[in-house]
Order: sequence, then structure tokens, then C-alpha cells
Amino acid sequence: MTRYKAIISYDGHDFSGFQRQPHARTVQEEIEKTLVRLNSGQPVTVHGAGRTDAGVHAYGQVIHFDLAGSRDAEKLRFALDTQTPEDIDVVSVEQVADDFHCRYAKHSKTYEFLVDIGRPKNPMMRHYATFYPYDLDLSLIEEAIQDLVGTHDFTGFTASGTSVEDKVRTITAATMEYDQRRQFLIFTFSGNGFLYKQVRNMVGTLLKIGNGRMPVGQIKRILAEKDRGLAGPTAAGNGLYLKEIIYED
Amino acid sequence: MTRYKAIISYDGHDFSGFQRQPHARTVQEEIEKTLVRLNSGQPVTVHGAGRTDAGVHAYGQVIHFDLAGSRDAEKLRFALDTQTPEDIDVVSVEQVADDFHCRYAKHSKTYEFLVDIGRPKNPMMRHYATFYPYDLDLSLIEEAIQDLVGTHDFTGFTASGTSVEDKVRTITAATMEYDQRRQFLIFTFSGNGFLYKQVRNMVGTLLKIGNGRMPVGQIKRILAEKDRGLAGPTAAGNGLYLKEIIYED
Repeated sequence: MTRYKAIISYDGHDFSGFQRQPHARTVQEEIEKTLVRLNSGQPVTVHGAGRTDAGVHAYGQVIHFDLAGSRDAEKLRFALDTQTPEDIDVVSVEQVADDFHCRYAKHSKTYEFLVDIGRPKNPMMRHYATFYPYDLDLSLIEEAIQDLVGTHDFTGFTASGTSVEDKVRTITAATMEYDQRRQFLIFTFSGNGFLYKQVRNMVGTLLKIGNGRMPVGQIKRILAEKDRGLAGPTAAGNGLYLKEIIYED
Repeated sequence: MTRYKAIISYDGHDFSGFQRQPHARTVQEEIEKTLVRLNSGQPVTVHGAGRTDAGVHAYGQVIHFDLAGSRDAEKLRFALDTQTPEDIDVVSVEQVADDFHCRYAKHSKTYEFLVDIGRPKNPMMRHYATFYPYDLDLSLIEEAIQDLVGTHDFTGFTASGTSVEDKVRTITAATMEYDQRRQFLIFTFSGNGFLYKQVRNMVGTLLKIGNGRMPVGQIKRILAEKDRGLAGPTAAGNGLYLKEIIYED
């Protein structure tokens, strides 16, 4: 048995998320179905570092799985890339230690969130960015986003009822850029882990601040009071991208 | 009877092109189906300025059609926009003279062509840019593209067997830019009219020149000899966008 780590990208639009579930098309299931064929028909379990939701995209999702025997990594990458559906690309494959676990090995993640603020909206991007048709003062967003950086209890930005006990996470970078050509806002968040729906709730809150319907100090207040009711709405999954995962070793 | 001109945008991926044809989903048919409902069930014919092929996208397609009676243009735009499928957006509607014809009225068109030259390729853009995995010397493309500007007989760049007799057209601008963020090439061509498959054949030729498999002077030779056999392959429709149409009056 040999363990492999792979970096994959996928278009989340036609998936009900990463994680296998009954009666739904998922990234995990598609890759497992392909791996079974490459593993002499024996079942293979795929583990993912980030369990992206329905509609969420990935440039740099990391998975690991075990196969009988040992393969040439590039040949395996090519076989997987060509045999998975066209909305999944296999970027790289490497052999790793038998005890590597993509989710539990220490890592940092970077997420990107695209918001289409153009007029008119771009129909080509309707599944790849969230359209925001309201006025925005970008300077308010630039000011507020700074308050997310650092080590905080992000309870106020996660879905209520989350089973994770420790909601303290560290965000090492949080930026917003304006892409003039596409008239897109590009939010980027890096950190040592993110709670369920945290990125989408942070973006929903920042947009509400930019729209003037929440004060610029609202982020600080949500972090201090740990109250989901103080945050903005959850931004749609179609604008979210798991961009990169970097392991400590 | 009142004539209306509308600017529409659409995602060409799920269409067999603009023009109505049996047993195929087309932009024209979808808009006509919607207009019938807005015209008391009476049939409506939609004319398009550019008959885009299967998979080709539009930001600024122009159409015209006649409706019984007179409507508020913005209300009509809203009704059309919301009642057409989600891959068609209606950007603007205005009342025009009864003799306006979107195809025959003098106009210039601008087309854009996106080429994904990133590594790895972007699965989110597989229907919205043409992936080109080969080496490119962009300076060769920048040099060769200049030769397309001006008034030329473009016979060598159109599909053989085209019924149009006069193949002389004027290209007023032809540029290639590199979008660093997305690792895309963006080709832009403006002119007073384009022959069938002309833009896709020009792009296919420019990429072959950039890849070093055709000399940089090939464009001049194709224009002089009017021989389709000298040009490069037809680039795929998925990278092509009808960007803008400007009427002389």
C-alpha cells in the first residue's frame, strides 16, 4: 500500500460539494470511482483537506488516498486527470509518508471570494462570482477587513449549531482588491483554518458594511460579542474558491 | 407596430448558436418564445446583428423586433430580462425607427478572444476561454497582429465555400494583451464587418505564429495569396465573445 497526496482543481457548479452523500454528485465520489478502476477494482477512500460546500470551487484542494502497490506519480496524475470528469483537473500527485493526513497535518489555507460589481452583470460569470447590484464604498471595506486579521474567536462568523468546540482561529492575511478589467472585487483570506461558512459570512458582513447598512466597526463588535446575529448574511457559495493549501513540512 | 432595438448578453455554452434551427436550443428562439408571451401570443421575429456560432458568447449582441402597440422601454427590458433563461441578459431596450435593421444599418463590431495560457489550466474557464498548452513567444504575436489592421481581402481567413462575394473588410484595431492575474491572452479585433469564422481563423494563425510553427510574415502572405490553406487552424468557439456593436448614427 502506498499513500498519495494530490492537488486538484474543480468547478463546483455541478457538484453538491466535496463530501460524499447519497443521491448527489460530489467531488469525492467522482474521484473514488476513478481510483477504483486504477486500483484493480478495489475500493479507495479519498480524504479532502477542505470539505467545500455545493457550488464552491477549488484551485488547490488537497486530497490523499492509498493504492495497492507503487505507481509512477506523473503517470498516476495523468490517468486520474484524464479519467475524471471535465470539471475536475488533477494538478499534481506525489507519494507521501503512510501517516500523512491532508486534513490533520498542520497547514494554512487561502480562500478567494469573487464579487461581480459590474453594470451590467456578466452572464458568463453567474456561477463563478456573486453578483452584487448595490452601491459600495470600497474604502469602508478596506478599513473593516483589517479587523479580521489576527487570532480571534470567530463564533460570530460561523453557522450556528456547529459542532466544533474551539472556535479560535488565526487569519494571517485578509485583503480586498478591485479588478478593473472585470469589475470584480477579489477578497483573499489566509489562515490556519476556517470554521463552517466563516469566509462566506465574513464577505456578507463586509459587503453590508461597504453598502453602509452596518457601521465600519461591526467586525470588532461581532468578534467581541461572538453573536452570529450581529453579522451580515451568508454570501452565496458560487463566489468562493479554495485557492491554496500550504503544509508546514 | 413599434420597432425595438435591444442589447443582449449571453453565455453561449448551452446554445447551438444565435440563429434558429430545428432541434437545437438557440438564442433567437429563446427570445422569440419570450416575446410571444409579451405580444399577446402573436409571433415575433428577432433579428440579430451577429449570428454567433455554437459556444460563442456575447456581451453586446444587438437585436431588433416589432411588437404590437407601444411599451415603456425599461419595463419591456425588465420583463424580457427576467423571463428569458438565466444564460441570457437583456442589457438595454430602446424604441427605434421602423426602418432600423440591426444587421444592415452601418456599424462596427468588436470581438474579443480569450486564450488560457496558464499552468495548470483553469477548469472554471473551460467554456469561456480556449486553453493553449504550448509555448508562445508573445512578441511574435504582437508583431504579426499589426498586419491584420487595414482594408484587406480576408478570403484566406474565412471558411472555404462561404457564399459572401465581397471578402474585403476593414479592421480598425487588432490588439493582444496579457492578463497577468488570470494568465490569459486577450485578443481584441474591431472592424466594419467580419467574415464567417474570420476571428477564430485569425487567432488560430496568430497562435501558430507565436508557437514558432509559422513565420511572423505569414499574415501578410495569407492576405496576399487569399489561400485558406496557408492559415492556421480555426480556434475553438468557446474563447470568442461578441463584445460591442456601434452604429454610425
